[in-house]
Amino acid sequence: MDLYGRDLLTTQEWSKPELEAVLDLAAKMKRDRFSDKYASILRYKTFLMFFYNPSVRTRQSFEAAATELGGHAQFLEPKAMRLRTATTAGETVEDAAKVMSRYGAGLGIRMLEDKVAAYGQGDDLLREYARWADIPIISMAHDKYHPCQGLADVMGWDEWFGKGPGRGVDPGVLQHKKLLVTWGHGALARSWCSVQEASLIGSRFGMDVTLAYPEGYDLDAAVISWTQQNCSETGRTFTITHDVREGYDAAHVVYSRHWMSPQAYQAGKFLKQQEIDRALEYPQWICDAEKMNLTADAIFTHPMPVDRGHEVTDEVASGPRSCIYDVAENRLHVQKAVMALTMGGL
Amino acid sequence: MDLYGRDLLTTQEWSKPELEAVLDLAAKMKRDRFSDKYASILRYKTFLMFFYNPSVRTRQSFEAAATELGGHAQFLEPKAMRLRTATTAGETVEDAAKVMSRYGAGLGIRMLEDKVAAYGQGDDLLREYARWADIPIISMAHDKYHPCQGLADVMGWDEWFGKGPGRGVDPGVLQHKKLLVTWGHGALARSWCSVQEASLIGSRFGMDVTLAYPEGYDLDAAVISWTQQNCSETGRTFTITHDVREGYDAAHVVYSRHWMSPQAYQAGKFLKQQEIDRALEYPQWICDAEKMNLTADAIFTHPMPVDRGHEVTDEVASGPRSCIYDVAENRLHVQKAVMALTMGGL
Amino acid sequence: MDLYGRDLLTTQEWSKPELEAVLDLAAKMKRDRFSDKYASILRYKTFLMFFYNPSVRTRQSFEAAATELGGHAQFLEPKAMRLRTATTAGETVEDAAKVMSRYGAGLGIRMLEDKVAAYGQGDDLLREYARWADIPIISMAHDKYHPCQGLADVMGWDEWFGKGPGRGVDPGVLQHKKLLVTWGHGALARSWCSVQEASLIGSRFGMDVTLAYPEGYDLDAAVISWTQQNCSETGRTFTITHDVREGYDAAHVVYSRHWMSPQAYQAGKFLKQQEIDRALEYPQWICDAEKMNLTADAIFTHPMPVDRGHEVTDEVASGPRSCIYDVAENRLHVQKAVMALTMGGL
Repeated sequence: MDLYGRDLLTTQEWSKPELEAVLDLAAKMKRDRFSDKYASILRYKTFLMFFYNPSVRTRQSFEAAATELGGHAQFLEPKAMRLRTATTAGETVEDAAKVMSRYGAGLGIRMLEDKVAAYGQGDDLLREYARWADIPIISMAHDKYHPCQGLADVMGWDEWFGKGPGRGVDPGVLQHKKLLVTWGHGALARSWCSVQEASLIGSRFGMDVTLAYPEGYDLDAAVISWTQQNCSETGRTFTITHDVREGYDAAHVVYSRHWMSPQAYQAGKFLKQQEIDRALEYPQWICDAEKMNLTADAIFTHPMPVDRGHEVTDEVASGPRSCIYDVAENRLHVQKAVMALTMGGL
Repeated sequence: MDLYGRDLLTTQEWSKPELEAVLDLAAKMKRDRFSDKYASILRYKTFLMFFYNPSVRTRQSFEAAATELGGHAQFLEPKAMRLRTATTAGETVEDAAKVMSRYGAGLGIRMLEDKVAAYGQGDDLLREYARWADIPIISMAHDKYHPCQGLADVMGWDEWFGKGPGRGVDPGVLQHKKLLVTWGHGALARSWCSVQEASLIGSRFGMDVTLAYPEGYDLDAAVISWTQQNCSETGRTFTITHDVREGYDAAHVVYSRHWMSPQAYQAGKFLKQQEIDRALEYPQWICDAEKMNLTADAIFTHPMPVDRGHEVTDEVASGPRSCIYDVAENRLHVQKAVMALTMGGL
Repeated sequence: MDLYGRDLLTTQEWSKPELEAVLDLAAKMKRDRFSDKYASILRYKTFLMFFYNPSVRTRQSFEAAATELGGHAQFLEPKAMRLRTATTAGETVEDAAKVMSRYGAGLGIRMLEDKVAAYGQGDDLLREYARWADIPIISMAHDKYHPCQGLADVMGWDEWFGKGPGRGVDPGVLQHKKLLVTWGHGALARSWCSVQEASLIGSRFGMDVTLAYPEGYDLDAAVISWTQQNCSETGRTFTITHDVREGYDAAHVVYSRHWMSPQAYQAGKFLKQQEIDRALEYPQWICDAEKMNLTADAIFTHPMPVDRGHEVTDEVASGPRSCIYDVAENRLHVQKAVMALTMGGL
């Protein structure tokens, strides 16, 4: 297996052994975080981070990842890039990608729902960069996928049910566990990328997957179809329910998060406020202790930032079965592993 | 003495031996600036810098400090953080602080008078971060205090009266010296943090302290009371005068700087222009050669940036008794020492 | 030859042997890019980058250069600097430069045509910084000059006609070659700095220089006069033509780029849109395959970002005789060499 030079736009495009290699290396890196053996991997090298959207954890964790690998991450915002758009003169993606390939060891791109005119355009742009660049393109979250979040999710769940944080991963431990991905109401209009990636990678690792959401909040049909296929390949079940409680039954992992409706884009505009207003009409869609009691003593997971009081109660988010901070920390470790394998030649 | 993990919000909360340990290490680091022995202290580690307010020296000196300790400082602006505020949904300080504790070795925060609705709210926010974070919180200047500036001040004054720049500190040399902290008129409305910190730390190191300002420019009563108590514990005097010249008499260190009035906040707003207009009515409040002639051949000190022509004349600021550039340089050295002791386990 | 501490505002102010020393070191650094022997040159040291204007390549290549030399580049924007201007109170350049000299090993400044009220003010500001700073001031492009671009240009041309990329430079190979610098129409109003620097350095290395542009697009008379003088010193020719084709005849290097007219500033304002509208009236001023056929099998060069479809056709810019990506890469190598020689004491 040689991952050197590979792009990572979604975990669905990497094989199971490749994903396991990432998780295995991430666990080793977590156990021995500042060891010199990892700190020479990107020594003197530059990881270019291209933020069309600002971020909290993504910026911090990718930049720290480069530092811990001995390299440096550049924080770049497109407003400084003078790139060609539909309405302004500027540089083509071809030129930008070819030059960045001369300077950097890899390029991370973040482009979420509110920076595009229609769902899927972010994914198109990342693939355009990947087409021209000679260096790996890593999604730092885009409108369709969020591969590093998905890897951090399964690493965190695996640790919880397996050996514990910092003790290594045991991917088999997630087999036959039930993952509930449930919509939560909220005051933020959120992308499909995190929940889609979680459904995809959870189903790859042998979990039963249930999606729960109010009518009218369907996700990307192609992603649903892949998830279904992943489940059938591992002999597990895939279910969709519009009942707010049903999915909690016997769940092992509960993932409650808001996502936008398919009506979010109209005439090339992302209607954020309309999405928020609409979502607030479903106050019963919140993960709380009473619903968690229906589960098989499930853990609570979330990619953060958490919209407390909407997606989940404080009692659950800060409770003893919440793995949110462990998952957040794992962003760092899986990203180090991805960078080491795709850019460091490990 | 073990400072590992300690927060630094004001020097007043650290013991005298702890402050002396910082100054001693800072002097050694200044003498041997790029030695490998200091460059492994934060190797591969991340210092998170959180700038609610932009800065000149603070950004440059903290980021250079991390580099010189072998680590890396991330420059973060809250606009990218999606934090919860009184009026917007977002992440809680609890969540932000707990996650940053997983990525970073320490967190610096800068939040000045114009980013809060009332004096003291900046200090409250830093204490909220300190409550939840597992890593040291270091003030990079906030509305009440500016501990690293205070440390750089006394280091610079000590060098001037003692062994000289780069030759080590001799804290005893400041005992019985007279510090004049005088208000200056100006075209910038400035925080209380620097002058309050200077009064506090100067009085800790055995200086007589005189505050001079026009009526109506009282500082924080609690800080004044602590300064008074510090002076009485070391057997020194503390004086307040509203005369523009009196304080210069027999002074050894003259610190002239504008600060806002207690009326700067009204109805939750910081009235910057009103403060500037009001200050410009006191043109006699400027440190000039004629007033410096009243002193005991005093040095001129200022935390910079200097508002030349208002707070001080060019003749004094650029004169042979000005220590402003040495003090500015010392920001770097004391910050390296603070980071080494609180984050590096030195 | 000792370049330690030297400013670089234009290649015209460095001697030919000094420029050759840069190119020679740059070629070695390109051949052995991540070698430890170069990575200790700026170890633990800070290069301050001061961007009055945003940038694409300049930010990426300077920041990567510092990383590859073992140091760190700080990305600073003047909005955070509270500097004194004609209309606002703030810090003087003297104070800013003197303090930065305490923190950094060098200071890069970028200030282009749209951040000044008249041509030449950017150059004045850089010289004001150079007057007060104790560390090297490096132009990262300003209204008059772009020395690192000029060095990257001749390095790229030299590689093309000489030993090839990564195989070392042979400056003699450019002697008697013909350089055409031709105006291109375009939808971006561009500075004189790149084309002026190319004319100056091309003529230093023994090239025949032809400038081609429509009437009304004269460049800086002083720069033209120096170029003329450079050519006469090396026994080469200098020509100006207003014919769109004539200059292509027997050219070896074709440099097609838009530049603003001398009328771009009126009453202290940079009239960008007027410049764009005016330029678009000359659609015949584009470098295309038909014109390239008039040359001596010339290579196409451009400092990027390329305004494709205006300055040059896709066919030429992406064709087999285009050296634009090699020149862009060379920005990194020449900047590493300049930093090593002026800041690293090499």
